[in-house]
Amino acid sequence: MDNVSASGIKALVFDVFGTVVDWRSGVAREVAAFIASAQVTVDPFEFADAWRREYAPAMAEVRAGNRGFVRLDVLHRENLEKALMGFGIDPQSIPAASLDELNLAWHKLDPWPDAVPGLSRLKERFIIAPLSNGNIRLMLDIAKRAGIPWDAILGAEVVRMYKPAPSVYLDTAELLAIEPAELCMVAAHNDDLKAAKACGLKTAFVSRPREHGGAQTKDLFAEGQWDFVASSFIELADMMLGVGQSKRQ
Amino acid sequence: MDNVSASGIKALVFDVFGTVVDWRSGVAREVAAFIASAQVTVDPFEFADAWRREYAPAMAEVRAGNRGFVRLDVLHRENLEKALMGFGIDPQSIPAASLDELNLAWHKLDPWPDAVPGLSRLKERFIIAPLSNGNIRLMLDIAKRAGIPWDAILGAEVVRMYKPAPSVYLDTAELLAIEPAELCMVAAHNDDLKAAKACGLKTAFVSRPREHGGAQTKDLFAEGQWDFVASSFIELADMMLGVGQSKRQ
Repeated sequence: MDNVSASGIKALVFDVFGTVVDWRSGVAREVAAFIASAQVTVDPFEFADAWRREYAPAMAEVRAGNRGFVRLDVLHRENLEKALMGFGIDPQSIPAASLDELNLAWHKLDPWPDAVPGLSRLKERFIIAPLSNGNIRLMLDIAKRAGIPWDAILGAEVVRMYKPAPSVYLDTAELLAIEPAELCMVAAHNDDLKAAKACGLKTAFVSRPREHGGAQTKDLFAEGQWDFVASSFIELADMMLGVGQSKRQ
Repeated sequence: MDNVSASGIKALVFDVFGTVVDWRSGVAREVAAFIASAQVTVDPFEFADAWRREYAPAMAEVRAGNRGFVRLDVLHRENLEKALMGFGIDPQSIPAASLDELNLAWHKLDPWPDAVPGLSRLKERFIIAPLSNGNIRLMLDIAKRAGIPWDAILGAEVVRMYKPAPSVYLDTAELLAIEPAELCMVAAHNDDLKAAKACGLKTAFVSRPREHGGAQTKDLFAEGQWDFVASSFIELADMMLGVGQSKRQ
């Protein structure tokens, strides 16, 4: 097992949905409030899962060039209508303002308990920023509500493309005026790290075995030769700041 | 005198060079260190002024469409060579790495003493972000070094255009998903506020009578019907947070 050094790394960029914040519990909480007011019958967690299932296909249309870049808030709003229809609910039967309000569920997600303490320590040595498919205002609202101390809000809307397209990782390194190898992608998703590594970035996997609730079967373990593998942001900070021992899979 | 309310304002965006940070003293300090190592003879403040004089014409080329968008770090590096030549110094006689290092002077500027305390208070109620012609990494480095608690780094590089082009103000409001009238531009420069107001933004003038040293003749006073006029960020926070009395020119 090599002892990996973080000495060449200048900036850390983070996946957010699942890695920094618990999107499923947060969305389900807002859906539950919506159910009470809109008088519809759905399971809040099942609805959150259904809404999230529309996420990847919607972004794929943009990546494929079938659609110009639109921010994630717009895709979430469209996906909300699809999710409702999937549950047999006509979106037209609900006031648009109520759906707009529910769409803000994604702006009110809570971080995993270790995220803010870990990020606060990592910020002392590194530039830290989200590299999420979420848009600027979405990331900003989450951070402001939760006290996440980002140095900047980077991500899809800044580079006008969705992960895992290579340009997202490479253009972000370029914006930061650093080499790809000086940038480390932190994510709970092996696919994100695979794409980042292919662009020459360093990679850190932080496992989030409760992202999808108890039924999670994917991303339980590191599935690639990532530079760092940790079970929390606290452990990642220990590794990257040289406290304890670095770990390589 | 009307009592202007900040109640409709959701976000404040700030000019940075001159408004938040004292660029002249900071650049002169770095130039002084450079002089000692490069064995050239220039007055550090005169050199800072000369370097800054190239700023507006360089951006004008981009705004006019004569040149694609390039970040301010690139323009500063080119302008550094022009400034050296203006003092009869051949840039080729100096190692490129020394000029690259001097170019980072703009990344190491100190805030005016009231800036961080005022911004910290304003952040409690409003989204706060720079809306500078400086690029993302430049703004990030200044903020990280000085502890400026921005919620996001916005500005020219995000919207790929330089102030005072209208698209800079309008696209920033659009990124924040707010109306122009919900966005307030804070600047020590009347021209910046004039352009922002023409786009429908709210405006706040904070006087910085020492930006150009003792010889300053411009922007000593508010020259338009700005919504707020203050002599410091502390006073601006008092006005916008409802402490004391709001002031309209």
